[in-house]
Formats: sequence, C-alpha cells, structure tokens
Amino acid sequence: MIAEILATGNELLTGALVDTNSAYISDKLAEIGVKVSRHTLVGDADDELSQVIKELSLRADIVIVTGGLGPTRDDLSREIAARCAGVKLLTDSASLEKIEHFFTTRGRKVPANNRRQAEFPSGSEILENPIGTAPGFALKINRGTFFFLPGVPAEMRKMLKEQVMPRLTVELKDPCHYRCRTISCFGIGESALEEKLDGFSECFPYIELGFRASFPEVQVKLYQKNRDEKELLISEETARQWIKERIGRKIVSDTGKSLAAVVGELLRRQQATLAVAESCTGGLLANLLTDNAGSSNYFILSAVTYADLAKQKVLGVDPEIIKKFGAVHEETAKAMAAGARKLAGSTYAISTTGIAGPDGGSPEKPVGTVCIGLAGPSGVTGKRYCFPFGKRLLNKKIFTAQALDLLRKYLTSNQ
Amino acid sequence: MIAEILATGNELLTGALVDTNSAYISDKLAEIGVKVSRHTLVGDADDELSQVIKELSLRADIVIVTGGLGPTRDDLSREIAARCAGVKLLTDSASLEKIEHFFTTRGRKVPANNRRQAEFPSGSEILENPIGTAPGFALKINRGTFFFLPGVPAEMRKMLKEQVMPRLTVELKDPCHYRCRTISCFGIGESALEEKLDGFSECFPYIELGFRASFPEVQVKLYQKNRDEKELLISEETARQWIKERIGRKIVSDTGKSLAAVVGELLRRQQATLAVAESCTGGLLANLLTDNAGSSNYFILSAVTYADLAKQKVLGVDPEIIKKFGAVHEETAKAMAAGARKLAGSTYAISTTGIAGPDGGSPEKPVGTVCIGLAGPSGVTGKRYCFPFGKRLLNKKIFTAQALDLLRKYLTSNQ
Repeated sequence: MIAEILATGNELLTGALVDTNSAYISDKLAEIGVKVSRHTLVGDADDELSQVIKELSLRADIVIVTGGLGPTRDDLSREIAARCAGVKLLTDSASLEKIEHFFTTRGRKVPANNRRQAEFPSGSEILENPIGTAPGFALKINRGTFFFLPGVPAEMRKMLKEQVMPRLTVELKDPCHYRCRTISCFGIGESALEEKLDGFSECFPYIELGFRASFPEVQVKLYQKNRDEKELLISEETARQWIKERIGRKIVSDTGKSLAAVVGELLRRQQATLAVAESCTGGLLANLLTDNAGSSNYFILSAVTYADLAKQKVLGVDPEIIKKFGAVHEETAKAMAAGARKLAGSTYAISTTGIAGPDGGSPEKPVGTVCIGLAGPSGVTGKRYCFPFGKRLLNKKIFTAQALDLLRKYLTSNQ
Repeated sequence: MIAEILATGNELLTGALVDTNSAYISDKLAEIGVKVSRHTLVGDADDELSQVIKELSLRADIVIVTGGLGPTRDDLSREIAARCAGVKLLTDSASLEKIEHFFTTRGRKVPANNRRQAEFPSGSEILENPIGTAPGFALKINRGTFFFLPGVPAEMRKMLKEQVMPRLTVELKDPCHYRCRTISCFGIGESALEEKLDGFSECFPYIELGFRASFPEVQVKLYQKNRDEKELLISEETARQWIKERIGRKIVSDTGKSLAAVVGELLRRQQATLAVAESCTGGLLANLLTDNAGSSNYFILSAVTYADLAKQKVLGVDPEIIKKFGAVHEETAKAMAAGARKLAGSTYAISTTGIAGPDGGSPEKPVGTVCIGLAGPSGVTGKRYCFPFGKRLLNKKIFTAQALDLLRKYLTSNQ
C-alpha cells in the first residue's frame, strides 16, 4: 500500500510559508500504521498541479492533498480533481446552504466566489469542515483514493482526525489497534538516548521506536499495533517501565508533555506557588510558564532583572554579593531566588543569571555559562552549568529548561 | 529553466521534524530570479531516493538536494548520486585531510564512517562546508545540475549562499542584478494590505510583489531584476516611497526587521532605557526584547506581575485602583507603567494587563482584551484594545506586538 502527501499553494512553493501540514499528516498516519513514502509540494499553477495529480493517481493508493479549496481563482483543486477523474463539477445543495448560513448569520451577502466552494467532482464523497467555509472531498482517481483537505492547519487537522482517519481505517480493512506513546526527556542527547535504549528492539520486537528532537527536549515515540487492545496496553506499559529503568529521572513526562507544563502541573497538584527571577533568560522562563492555561493559580511573578541595579532594587540582592562574586555566580543566583521568594511570598522561587552571548564571555565564564538558584521552604541552593551551544537564542532556551528541570526534580523528589 | 528542490531524511518523511530547508531555498533562489516549480521529500530508503533522483534528472535543469551527507549508513546521497550518474565514488584527499583535522584537533580518532564523507562521485565539484564535517558536491546527472547539501540548516544556509548561489549565477548566464526588499508592517491584515497596494503592478510592472504573513506582522516583498544596478536601486526607492504613502506608520521597518528589533534600535539610538510591566503577556515582551543581542544597553527590567498582590508589591500599584477599576483597565495599566518606570529609573516603561484566555473573559472584557500603559518623561497614557483571535498564545503575541508598536510610534514621533 503506497501513501503519499501533496501540499499545494504558491505561498508554500515560494517559501513565504513553511509547510507544516505534511509532517503533521505523516505523523498522524503512522499512528494507524500507514507509512508515507513521499511528500510533494507544488504551487497553484494549473499545469503543474494537474501533472502531479496525474502522476500520483498512477503511483499511490492513498493521497492526502492540502490546499486549493479556498474561494479565490487560485484555488483549483476541485476543477483539476474533476478533470483528472474525467467527471463534472456538481453543486451540492447541502454544502451551499451551509456556506450561505455562514455568511448570512454574520450579516453578509454570500460572495459569488464562495458559492464555488459548494461544487464537487461528481462521485466524490464530501468531507465536512466544521470550522471553516471550505468542505473537503474524497475521490477515486485511477489507482488512488484522494482526500482533498483545506490548507489552514486547524481545519486540516480536525478534518484529518474526524473525516479521513476513520475512512482510512475502513479502507485499510486492518483489524489492528494502533497506539503511539510519547516520552519526553531532558538532559540527554538523541544519540546518547539511542545508545541507552540499545537492545530495545530485541526485547520488544513488535514495538517500533522513533526519536524526535525538540530542542532542548528529546522525545521517544513507541509505535505499536495489535489486534488485541488489552495486550497492546500491557506491552506498552512493560516497554515504558523498561525505558524508565534506563533513562530514570531524565524522563520529563511519559505522556509527551513539555517541561513547563509538567512543572506547572506539579505546582498545581502540590498547591504550591512560584516566583521567578531572570537575568540571562530575559523573560523566557516566565513566558513558557504562562503559556500554560491556568498558570495564574501558581505563578505569582517574574522579575526580569537585566541590570545589576534592578537585581538590587527589585530583588533586594546585596550589592556586596555582586561586587564580591560577580553577576554570574551561584551566590548571586541564590540571592536572586531568595529575594524573589520573599518579594512574592511564594512557596518556591527559581533564578537564572548567566551569559547568553554573543558577547560578555570570559575564559572563566564563557558564553553558555549559567547559574541557577532554587529557593524553597527548606533553604536556598545554587548550581552552575556550562552549555556548548554558543548561540544566544539556544542558550536562552537551554538555560530556561535547566532551571525548570531543577525545579521539576526537586518537586518530584518531594512527593 | 526548471528548478526543483529535494529534501531527504526519514525524520522529515515521518514528520518527526518539519522541513524548513526547502522553503528557505525557494525564498533565496527567488532573489536571483530562479523560480522553483516543485518540492519533493523522501526518506532514506535506497530505492525511493534513487527513483526520485532519476525522475528529477530527466525533468529539471537545477536541483538542490538537502540531507543524506552524514556519516551513518542511512546517508546514501553520495552512493546514489554516483550510481544515477553512472560514475564511481572516489576519495578526495583534501576533504579527507580536513575531516581528519576536525577530529584530531578535538583529540579524537576519526571514526571509519566519517572517512566516507570524503568520497564523492567522480566528476563532481566539491562544495566546501566551513562549519561541519560533511562537504557537499555539484554533479551533472542527465539534464540536471544537482547541488547536494547537508540537511543541518545552519550548514545548508551558509553553503547555499557561499557555494551554490555564485555558481548558479554563472550557470544562468544571466546578466541581471537581482534585489529583494522586505517591508514589515503591523496593524494591517494581509488582504487589507493587498487592497491598499492595488495599482502597484500598473505603476511598477517590473517589480513583483510578494506577501508573507508572520503573525502578527505581515511582510511585503519587492522582487526586481535589472541589468543596471543603479536603475534597480532607484526604482526600488520609488516603489518604497509609493508604498510608504499608502501604508504610512503601519510600516514597522523597510528592511524586514521585527518590531522588537526596531524598538531596540530606536532606544539605543536615543540613548533611552526601558522598563516593562507585564501581566497577560507573561514575560513574552521581555523575552522578545532580550532576544536582541546588546539589549542590556537599554533594557533594565521587566516585572511579570501575574498576581494582583505582585502588582502592588513590586510596582507599587495602589490597591484602590485595582479595586475601583479592576486588574484589566487603562488606569491599572497606567499605574503599572508608572510603577515600573519609577522602580527602574528608566526613560520609558510599557505595561500590559489583559485577558489572554481561555478563561477569565466577560461580556464587557472578553478574551482578547488588553490595556497597555506607556510612561515617559512627559507623562503616562493608557489604551485599550480588543483582538478577535481567541487563542491564548496568539493573544500573548498580539498583545506584546501592540505594546511594542505603541512604543515604536511614540519613539518615532519624538524624533
């Protein structure tokens, strides 16, 4: 069975936008055991798009197409699909009604162009779009079953899940259940992780391992299929334990959650609150924590104190400490964390002070050095790390992750 | 002339990683007048990769290939290219020396696998990789001139610019100069922008317009070619003026810079300093400002005061103001900005307080509402906005951009 993905749109072909849809679709199809063999991306030009659809219809059994369903003249997927299948376009009255409803409830007339979105190749099956005006459709062209979806990621994702995946499962006549479990790790590189998991495929020949780097975290994915859903869950659990024994506390989450989400959940569960004092991470730590919905339950404040004077005035860091040890030092980090905790009246506080670069490094404290403070009810600790990544934005990311990870480990050892 | 791009690698095909290289290459090639007609992406499997290279060699004149040059057994680009061209692999002694040097200076033995990276198809031209161990190569296969580059984005980008683009310019025998000018705008949508620039192509038929949405900013790109470089610059300047007359102060930068970078530059040039008080933007404002290298010259602090008590304790906001107006109000935003400016002793301060969602909205203050304060030597102002995007992370982005834009406009009207 050959499956391929086709993305269309001039904005993708010219590089104005990066195509994230194809990667998403590949990832999702793997979860039901469909391996994609090729991604193709073309613009909106009629000849090129027609040519590719013809090629795909002769080569592949399943093709997922994104884009080209909009209301403008550039959106040619419907016309070209009909032409390639040798059928006519017909207006679907139910779809037309929905489009009319969409506009009239917003007090607007239906633009003529939008009426085109209710036309489909004769013989196609319409795929509902619950959040946009462009329905998709499924159509057999030569050897291939084509699923035409909108290019807008939110619409595509919802329709892939609700309309395409169930149809594919039927089409595949596959009696198996599929599972994909994601385990997030921090503090270990992709190749070291692979090495640690050496021997996995001998122990679990029926589970496929995948690795995904999402700097600075690395994810391990376990793909599995089985006719018996219960067996599937049991072997997944055994595999998870096997991995846990080898990776230990470097596992951030065994459900694929990010560090900031895990820390947020631990704080919420322990009914604890957090204050942050940031120098080199410049607000990124607060930003990631507040990306979590409901973070106002545990996040009190972050003092992003770039200037030394700000560290003194806002956090009450003793100027003698900075004078004696320097701004980048465990003692300064400790004073910042203690100051933030006192200021906020929070259960915990974490702090970062370091050198993100490109300037400011020295032989003793090169770019990539960070000191992290952690203050809690039982006192204050400070640690120093030196990372080799060299780039300002990468350093901000890894410093932030290291601070979150220190707190995560503290909170889990406390449980 | 047909140009195509081929990305290779299982991590891309499975969706573990999103391919950003192909979009980057398309964008860069457009700057020298090369229009790409198709992107293809395949995994590391020998048969699929060989098949695609054969197809491309019969269809395209120029092909840029990324990936498959690494040291592992999965990296098959060299072997397959040689096989498709009907030539042997030969070891290049200069490349081998460089690889040996790379490892010995790091005190390591050269792994056998890495020696393979010095093998190239006979007749190919080696493309130096100044920042990695994998050199690339250019090779004619049937109709196509293929450029094989590493998949690591930083290496690929440097080699594309330094090795591929100059060779392409020679290959194209194109006597024209090419220019691409990027203009960043904020506070106007893509379609409104297109409408405002209606008539552009009649006035400037020799300049091609492109639009790129990079939420919440939108970029306008002007592509142009001319044999006479002087004429090119003059017409670009005329077009820039034409656009400026229509878009006005919604133009953030006419060199493609981001809002945070523009604000940073204005502060630096005016030798002014900035403090920030953030509630709903949760550190994103500080994070974007401190992404600029050298931001410590103007950025003093950000107080990310999520809790009301933090607003009072850190920023000295009068509890009566919050009690009377609520946390999300122009008066509270003004008090936060004034408090941050006083605390930091900075020239300016900006503040944000709003409802990013998903919870916390009300009929009077729905999710998407933000109040922004701006404090400076001549006083404090507060403004309210309501954005329709609905999603927490989009709201954090647009709130942050709106605050930066308010400051940008203030700083430029001051000049």
